Amino acid sequence: MPEYRLYCFAQSGNAYKAALLLALAGADWEPVFVDFFNGETRTPEYRALNAMGEAPILEHGDLRLTQSGVILDYLARRFPDFGPTSEEERREILRWTLWDNHKLTSCIATLRFQLKFLPEEKRLPEVIDFFTRRSGAALRVLDRHLFHRDWIAADHLTTADLSCIGYLYYDHEFPHDLTTFPNIDRWRQRIAALPGWRHPYDLMPGHPLPPGVLS
Amino acid sequence: MPEYRLYCFAQSGNAYKAALLLALAGADWEPVFVDFFNGETRTPEYRALNAMGEAPILEHGDLRLTQSGVILDYLARRFPDFGPTSEEERREILRWTLWDNHKLTSCIATLRFQLKFLPEEKRLPEVIDFFTRRSGAALRVLDRHLFHRDWIAADHLTTADLSCIGYLYYDHEFPHDLTTFPNIDRWRQRIAALPGWRHPYDLMPGHPLPPGVLS
Repeated sequence: MPEYRLYCFAQSGNAYKAALLLALAGADWEPVFVDFFNGETRTPEYRALNAMGEAPILEHGDLRLTQSGVILDYLARRFPDFGPTSEEERREILRWTLWDNHKLTSCIATLRFQLKFLPEEKRLPEVIDFFTRRSGAALRVLDRHLFHRDWIAADHLTTADLSCIGYLYYDHEFPHDLTTFPNIDRWRQRIAALPGWRHPYDLMPGHPLPPGVLS
Repeated sequence: MPEYRLYCFAQSGNAYKAALLLALAGADWEPVFVDFFNGETRTPEYRALNAMGEAPILEHGDLRLTQSGVILDYLARRFPDFGPTSEEERREILRWTLWDNHKLTSCIATLRFQLKFLPEEKRLPEVIDFFTRRSGAALRVLDRHLFHRDWIAADHLTTADLSCIGYLYYDHEFPHDLTTFPNIDRWRQRIAALPGWRHPYDLMPGHPLPPGVLS
């Protein structure tokens, strides 16, 4: 059996954060498909794995970890190239990972879910508008931060970059044109050029969705 | 000058997370009032302190830290009673701090802002309804977690508790009745009984708001 097992699905940017680290590190891992769109994360069996009812979950030996930020932190200790080289960098990685959870991923993921995965009659226009503005503000903060910087928290790619990039390759699925954020756009291409990089739809199972699964 | 300076204001649950740790630890600290409701966090001067434009900010010697989760992490190293005693606890603290940022604080704070700090004509009913449901789901996850547990991540109060409690003493300002979450309610009273505890409106400057400040 592979050393690492990641419960994930192709549409999950949170799972992608961990899957991409494993891919870039050349780790010995396998994805375990989570059938999110058929309600698997709401079953008692899945809640027994993760009471928060979320993907991803990482299994490594006897350890089972949840929350993408915890998994990234754990993997960065196993693959130190993706971690900090000083206490200051450690704090900076934590800072941007928290910010991502609070301001970027949470808004982009909700926005995309409304637009891409809900049938039109269930979409909430005011909520879509709210998250479009919120995520736009977050993208502006990140774009300014990446001015004259290659990476978010250090002079190399760290788990802070992997956290913030989670949903940004699904960019035809939310209303922001990322080419209008030039520093984000270059950083995104920089990551996509790394050996081992793959798009979330290629890296994790479950794409495309079977017809009618969302109806 | 006191050893720690915390940029904060009474209405900020994120600032309260750090202020409460300083209070419970008996630290030598002072609050520095941030005039959020008059737009101070949007000024160039404040953005120079924190490009993310958020409170709180902690100053300690030459260090200046932002993001409540980073500040809590830093203070737990100075006051280890609030930190982990094992690697497993460290991960558990991180897990609940990230979850709080993603699922609890972000929803409760937005909901309360809409209901308490926006004039009626600017409120977005669909957004309020959305965040009421989201934050209700988060409270149910936390309430289940606290069943048969005194503290969130260890056998003692840690920064994970301080993160999750951030907005939960402002409970007349959002539509959830916390007494209907019995485990949360007991945990909230447990924290309020600790020596040094103070309500956010007593602990930080700026309450009550001057009349008309929000118009």
